[in-house]
Amino acid sequence: MQEVINYLLAYDDLKIIQRKDMFNFSLDTVLLANFCSITKDVKDIVDFGTNNAAIPLLLSKRTNKPIRGIEVQKEAVDIALKNVSMNHLDHQISIIHDDIKKYVLKAPHTKLVLCNPPFFKVGEESHLNESEYLTIARHEIMIQLEEIIYSASSLLDFGGKLAMVHRPERMIEIIECMKRFHIEPKRLRFVYPKHCKEANVFLIEGVKEGRSGIKIESPLYAHNEDGSYSDEVRKYFGENIND
Amino acid sequence: MQEVINYLLAYDDLKIIQRKDMFNFSLDTVLLANFCSITKDVKDIVDFGTNNAAIPLLLSKRTNKPIRGIEVQKEAVDIALKNVSMNHLDHQISIIHDDIKKYVLKAPHTKLVLCNPPFFKVGEESHLNESEYLTIARHEIMIQLEEIIYSASSLLDFGGKLAMVHRPERMIEIIECMKRFHIEPKRLRFVYPKHCKEANVFLIEGVKEGRSGIKIESPLYAHNEDGSYSDEVRKYFGENIND
Repeated sequence: MQEVINYLLAYDDLKIIQRKDMFNFSLDTVLLANFCSITKDVKDIVDFGTNNAAIPLLLSKRTNKPIRGIEVQKEAVDIALKNVSMNHLDHQISIIHDDIKKYVLKAPHTKLVLCNPPFFKVGEESHLNESEYLTIARHEIMIQLEEIIYSASSLLDFGGKLAMVHRPERMIEIIECMKRFHIEPKRLRFVYPKHCKEANVFLIEGVKEGRSGIKIESPLYAHNEDGSYSDEVRKYFGENIND
Repeated sequence: MQEVINYLLAYDDLKIIQRKDMFNFSLDTVLLANFCSITKDVKDIVDFGTNNAAIPLLLSKRTNKPIRGIEVQKEAVDIALKNVSMNHLDHQISIIHDDIKKYVLKAPHTKLVLCNPPFFKVGEESHLNESEYLTIARHEIMIQLEEIIYSASSLLDFGGKLAMVHRPERMIEIIECMKRFHIEPKRLRFVYPKHCKEANVFLIEGVKEGRSGIKIESPLYAHNEDGSYSDEVRKYFGENIND
């Protein structure tokens, strides 16, 4: 299958190799990489299900801290490694070929875990004409939401953070799971396709053993009324919004 | 203490008697009365902690269905009764002087419970210079969040709804409590003081034994950038926004 090189950010040297039959980075990826809190106590960052390493690449523009990308699909690992090399980020980003559930049993703890997980339950959406790679990236075949949150909690130090992006339909389940595994939801931000519409995406960050009390951040609108990307999204895509 | 008669809605005949030393209706009251879903299956509506009956009065503009307002404070019950009479709504609104926790043990079931509860835990905010009436309306002295949600669940028929307004700080606790007492959160709406600010209020509606899946409704802005009320809020206050 043909590999394509895309720009990950406009007006920037960050590029990404993608394959049409595999996961391609999306707005969700970009929003999550910009949403998470990279506080002083964070010594390194772990990205669960990094796929082609889009999140580590984007994070490299916000921080110099080491980033570990964990990926279970061999073909995605190969592309991720190429992406890291092509962008000369081998000193910062390591790609680890492993199943998240197994990885956390032996890996060093961290203060920040990110995850853009598969959004759909098995059988929830048709995946006819979808490659096996894409099915695994979009459906809870290799790992389920509960296992992701449990794994993150195992890997997090006291006070460490888990940041995720997901669909609002699953929000209550995510909040319940976080609470069950001692991660207190602390920040929520809803993404609306445009004004006067329901949210179709949300961003959440929880703190391991954190105190209760959540902040609902200002709404993020993906598009303007005319369908073009909003200024905030254009900024995340690396555009100069004063143009 | 002096009683004052205010207009509850602009350009309307709905009036309300209030006492300065007791609970006075606020934007939260108005938003909750407009947020709840009065669907066809709703035969009557119960307002927990109705105080001066502001919510039943506002609901009478949306529906002809019977409304029961439950209130534990005798002085508030007296004012609520005067408000119902003054607005000629005795045929629709009944005010019941009881403790919510005791009331639900003997009362007929319903399909819709509303509650604008005390927002603060005991001792959480200073209540110096506050009357005992106001302290009870604002602090969890007579009833706690968990007891309210448990009581609502006891009173609700299968498929019945609980609608509440609260501060985001307590949202996770409310969601957990609803789930524990078999009320599935189905609608959430966040209220922002203005653009680019964090939400300071939220509205939630859950369904007894409902299926999982929540909708995050469009953001509600209370004020315009110049500090004036937004068109949506002015509409809820009964103003003609085409003026």
